[in-house]
Amino acid sequence: MSHQPLRTARTRLRRFPQRGIFDRQAINSILDEGLVCHLGLADATGQPFVLPTTYARVEDELYIHGSAASRTIRAMSTGQPVCATVTLVDGIVLARTAFNHSFNYRSVVILGSATAITDPVEKARGLTVLIDRLVPGRSNEVRPPTSQELKATSLLVLPIDEASAKIRSGPPGDTGDDLLTDAWAGVVPLQTSVLPPVPDPRLAPDRPIPAHIRSWRQETPN
Amino acid sequence: MSHQPLRTARTRLRRFPQRGIFDRQAINSILDEGLVCHLGLADATGQPFVLPTTYARVEDELYIHGSAASRTIRAMSTGQPVCATVTLVDGIVLARTAFNHSFNYRSVVILGSATAITDPVEKARGLTVLIDRLVPGRSNEVRPPTSQELKATSLLVLPIDEASAKIRSGPPGDTGDDLLTDAWAGVVPLQTSVLPPVPDPRLAPDRPIPAHIRSWRQETPN
Repeated sequence: MSHQPLRTARTRLRRFPQRGIFDRQAINSILDEGLVCHLGLADATGQPFVLPTTYARVEDELYIHGSAASRTIRAMSTGQPVCATVTLVDGIVLARTAFNHSFNYRSVVILGSATAITDPVEKARGLTVLIDRLVPGRSNEVRPPTSQELKATSLLVLPIDEASAKIRSGPPGDTGDDLLTDAWAGVVPLQTSVLPPVPDPRLAPDRPIPAHIRSWRQETPN
Repeated sequence: MSHQPLRTARTRLRRFPQRGIFDRQAINSILDEGLVCHLGLADATGQPFVLPTTYARVEDELYIHGSAASRTIRAMSTGQPVCATVTLVDGIVLARTAFNHSFNYRSVVILGSATAITDPVEKARGLTVLIDRLVPGRSNEVRPPTSQELKATSLLVLPIDEASAKIRSGPPGDTGDDLLTDAWAGVVPLQTSVLPPVPDPRLAPDRPIPAHIRSWRQETPN
């Protein structure tokens, strides 16, 4: 239940083999299910800013992109310490006591410093990964970025070296006499649902929805 | 579309009446729909930490609670600058070009410093608000906190004085020749769905689910 530091997979595997595997797998599985991370960055006065953004996990790195003109992206490019947090909210835990109310959730917190990818070929490949991770097969369907669009976009890579996962699941934690009280207790599960795609009104009306969009996350168990 | 600073409703109303009303209403509506905020706080070295937590908006204040022993909560209690961000992800925007891919979303960013509520009566009332805001009527059903539980919990109030909303909605922003390409374009809408409540296995099996839980967010349009 507590945040466990994650060094490299190799270090972790040497020191606590089972926990190490569990941690890396748990972290990856949460990162791969999430769509948006919350990126934290502090200014010189210590004021933090927390902004939502999309991301892709590629092996042990988190790819993040944004406008090259964005203050946040520029600050990240200089190697300032950042925090990237991904949270999946799985349910509301309704206990018999006010105190035991909670959420079921899975979250990952990554601390570190990002590096900007400046090589145009690497950058183009990284941006393709960001799209295809979100909607697999999408990059084949669309016009790739022009060199001007590439210039206007920054790609940052944050190593997943110092990270932790936190998970709460299951029924409320009531104990003792509280179990004898009259209150209903349990969990209201929540999930992110995918609704039917809404075509751009500028498409031909008889235009079929391609398979890579029709099937997107339809198979997601949760 | 851009983050607009929000001072007090009064200042805003004097200077840009329509925008002011819109901003405060837009911010409140996003805060009231969200369940979890991401709280940012930096340590002395400038390393930010971003943690998910529940909250309640009460008029122009955000209530946040947590364990009195938590480092984050203790740091917030000292008046350190914080950022609270709430994000609702409404859809994935699939454009004809890689560059125009985006999310539809609504987010609020609040900057400021929190104050700890130490008076036990005020604190108990604030914690009740946190529960009832999440599931209206819930506090009537459950055992209220003991004085020990109250001591173990901190309640913090963050004024919504400096805040901004950001909203993207609608179809992709493709223009010009890109509209002539062959790619499908549109939006895959996403929503948070409420699944049927799962009773605590320790409840009597014939125990009915009370109305305040059966009806919870069933009427939410999105």
